[in-house]
Amino acid sequence: MPALDYPLPVQSLIQQLKKLPGLGPRSAERLALWFMQAGRERLEPLSMALGSLTQLVEACPECGFFIERETECQLCGNPKRDHRLLCVVEQAADVLRLERSGGYDGLYHVLGGKLSPLDNVTPEDLRLSGLTKRVRLRQTEEVILATGSDVEGEATAGYIKDLL
Amino acid sequence: MPALDYPLPVQSLIQQLKKLPGLGPRSAERLALWFMQAGRERLEPLSMALGSLTQLVEACPECGFFIERETECQLCGNPKRDHRLLCVVEQAADVLRLERSGGYDGLYHVLGGKLSPLDNVTPEDLRLSGLTKRVRLRQTEEVILATGSDVEGEATAGYIKDLL
Repeated sequence: MPALDYPLPVQSLIQQLKKLPGLGPRSAERLALWFMQAGRERLEPLSMALGSLTQLVEACPECGFFIERETECQLCGNPKRDHRLLCVVEQAADVLRLERSGGYDGLYHVLGGKLSPLDNVTPEDLRLSGLTKRVRLRQTEEVILATGSDVEGEATAGYIKDLL
Repeated sequence: MPALDYPLPVQSLIQQLKKLPGLGPRSAERLALWFMQAGRERLEPLSMALGSLTQLVEACPECGFFIERETECQLCGNPKRDHRLLCVVEQAADVLRLERSGGYDGLYHVLGGKLSPLDNVTPEDLRLSGLTKRVRLRQTEEVILATGSDVEGEATAGYIKDLL
């Protein structure tokens, strides 16, 4: 008797879910089964949200935070913010975290990660050339390095310090 | 200054991801940002797999395991299996688990859950009417109750025992 498995479309979905960060084989399987039971009414909005995401949203070419396509960046395009301050962070989520804490009204620069030789993340993988250009050409007076306090975050901050 | 937030398409994706089982607000946000960085090449296959899932796959009306639409169930339609044995399980994943363990070659009946008053899962939410019909009309000689060993699983098994 051939070994029983899920139908191919379910198997392929499980394969794809497994690649998502934080999902192991078991949670990928559980999620796929949940999708099957959830039915089309709940799957279609999610499928469409994923499919249209990159059409609707892009990274601001200046700071790297997200903007809706063909709109101005809420950060870089805001004259009320202090354009002399530039805060360098690892991820877009860090921008929101700092904004919610209040107190900072300068600009941001999202690197898109941190240096991590073990994960094959090298300087070329981060938004670094944009950073040096910004600091050189814009009215930046102060750069705040707000990368993480872990080893990789510290190494990234050190690298940028030397670079600038 | 209005509070900064992600563009609406990203916010709406986070809202939807939050509803998935096992994903809290923080993992939903992390996943959404990962999707943004992953780019269209990785998003489109997932979006399509989700969108086509319910068109391609359905639950076998007899046993409740998954079949590709317009194909015969690998279990119910297999004359080599022992059609006198019927094993009642909670989820489709339990079928695979039992199959992989080997040793059983009868049929299955997937309930689609277990009785759980706290989660509002009542007998009407489970595939129970199909079960009584199968036992009455088919050649079933032995019903094996393989629901979970937790309180709800035991209660479900007890309920089915009384029902049959």
